[in-house]
Amino acid sequence: MVDRSDVEAAAALIDGRVRQTPVLTLAGGELGVPGRLSLKLELFQHAGSFKPRGAFNRMLQSPLPEAGVLAASGGNHGLAVAYAARALGVPAEVFVPVTASPVKVERLASLGAQVRQVGQHYAEALAASTRRAEETGALVVHAYDQPEVVAGQGTVGRELERQLDGIDTVVVAVGGGGLVSGIATWFDGGVRVVAVEPEQIPTLHTALKVGRPVDVEVGGIATDSLGAQRIGGIAFDTARRTGVVSVLVRDEDLVRARRLLWSELRVAAELGGAAALAALIGRAYVPREGERVALIVCGGNTDPSDLAARPH
Amino acid sequence: MVDRSDVEAAAALIDGRVRQTPVLTLAGGELGVPGRLSLKLELFQHAGSFKPRGAFNRMLQSPLPEAGVLAASGGNHGLAVAYAARALGVPAEVFVPVTASPVKVERLASLGAQVRQVGQHYAEALAASTRRAEETGALVVHAYDQPEVVAGQGTVGRELERQLDGIDTVVVAVGGGGLVSGIATWFDGGVRVVAVEPEQIPTLHTALKVGRPVDVEVGGIATDSLGAQRIGGIAFDTARRTGVVSVLVRDEDLVRARRLLWSELRVAAELGGAAALAALIGRAYVPREGERVALIVCGGNTDPSDLAARPH
Ligand SMILES: Cc1ncc(COP(=O)(O)O)c(C=O)c1O
Ligand SMILES: Cc1ncc(COP(=O)(O)O)c(C=O)c1O
Repeated sequence: MVDRSDVEAAAALIDGRVRQTPVLTLAGGELGVPGRLSLKLELFQHAGSFKPRGAFNRMLQSPLPEAGVLAASGGNHGLAVAYAARALGVPAEVFVPVTASPVKVERLASLGAQVRQVGQHYAEALAASTRRAEETGALVVHAYDQPEVVAGQGTVGRELERQLDGIDTVVVAVGGGGLVSGIATWFDGGVRVVAVEPEQIPTLHTALKVGRPVDVEVGGIATDSLGAQRIGGIAFDTARRTGVVSVLVRDEDLVRARRLLWSELRVAAELGGAAALAALIGRAYVPREGERVALIVCGGNTDPSDLAARPH
Repeated sequence: MVDRSDVEAAAALIDGRVRQTPVLTLAGGELGVPGRLSLKLELFQHAGSFKPRGAFNRMLQSPLPEAGVLAASGGNHGLAVAYAARALGVPAEVFVPVTASPVKVERLASLGAQVRQVGQHYAEALAASTRRAEETGALVVHAYDQPEVVAGQGTVGRELERQLDGIDTVVVAVGGGGLVSGIATWFDGGVRVVAVEPEQIPTLHTALKVGRPVDVEVGGIATDSLGAQRIGGIAFDTARRTGVVSVLVRDEDLVRARRLLWSELRVAAELGGAAALAALIGRAYVPREGERVALIVCGGNTDPSDLAARPH
């Protein structure tokens, strides 16, 4: 299992490799939702999402093989591994499903990674990457279900705690669960952690209901960032142990939340990055008056064209 | 004149009306320029720029007339006055040149302001607004050359000082000079202040050369945010007294800087908001190794469409 000291160690190991991302605190009632919101602007991280935290923590544990590193990813994890590999001077090979957004595939290539597009969903890309790792001996950096990856993502929670004067609740998007479980590990039950999934990708939600991780059908508009087929084992155990609250959001609330981040704040997030706010505006999670709520705005690898020129 | 205590008073008066905007600090050498950069993300302010600080400080000095408030503005000042008027429950009438971007005009209307489009440049809109104020008795909120406005903009400097552990240099865009002079007033010579203007709008630059504010020809791509025809009197005096360093940037460096803010940081700034970074990438100002440089990213009222899908 991963514990708080692993997150502490990860923070020390990746220090200087990742950015400390800023927090924007809003007045009570802004954006038309209750509670006092703080936004952790993790979309300003290297490569546009929180994912380099886990990738660096995994890759800095010991010397890397000559074959470099290998990842399977709907996109942002791949970008992070490609970015980290370039920073550390090793090759990277990244397997993505064909549903990955063209923006992300282009960026992967421009970061110097070898990109392989395989399968409709993440699980197929992952299987292909595992076979390939056996051939080359490259280090596999999992998108979420490795202790070093979870501990790395947990540094988002550690940073947040230092940046804010008190937090009641952290709201965070879930794909395979690396981010949510890293954060839940750090807070260890001392803060309410709300895990947000699209209705059409309820991996954690289903697992908590049936008592174990199971495959779900994956659909809707946020598959390229949140489209894992099954919650990670570490994430499931951590969520159960620390009492993570699981909620579901509609795709239309993802869209509205992303628009609102732009129109009210000039923050250009991707859909997965807007999921935490979507839970509030869709009332999947309703804070009480004065509740100090931190929303993780976890990614910005988006084409911002459709944000143009809306009334304020 | 405006002094440090006026900025202090402004901060107290506008507290709760404006957002404390976050700062993103980069590692040395990031973005390919020397120095250790911190970005003050003032584009996340209400209405998308720093301008509400000055507007609220002017409007909260005493009870407002029934006719409300009146402003002339290339765009962002108008948005700020419209926003502040709505927040305070009074009518706003805003005069803009026909060069104002459609995005801004639409937003003005959606904030409930009466919009009047007059003249090619700011000066003509200003003249029309002055005539109108005599008719209606509305309070004129100047875009830069009023002590309360300058003191309000100075709160950006005060906030920055509290957020960072030491600053050597602040780099800031200049239109009529409210922002730069507010910041220079706050630091009062204790920090180097670099004032950035487009080559084709050298209002402060020319004034410092000839020894007094004079009209300049206004051209290039950043007129809608930086297109004042003459530096404000308060700004000129303050710049001379505190030793502000004046530099000019090419339009192409504004474009490059705006793209870089997006591709490396996912910050979607407008051209005026990218001017401070443009000075560094165009080497108009070259920090020494290790110099702690704060860049004010002062506006985000942009159509982000053209930022789409660039290689990282
Ligand atoms: C923007 C964004 N948010 C959230 C997630 C979910 O992260 P995790 O798989 O750790 O749950 C991802 C995963 O790629 C992502 O890209
Ligand atoms: C984004 C932006 N930056 C800078 C400025 C210049 O401000 P000032 O007129 O106070 O010099 C403006 C003015 O409108 C602006 O909108």
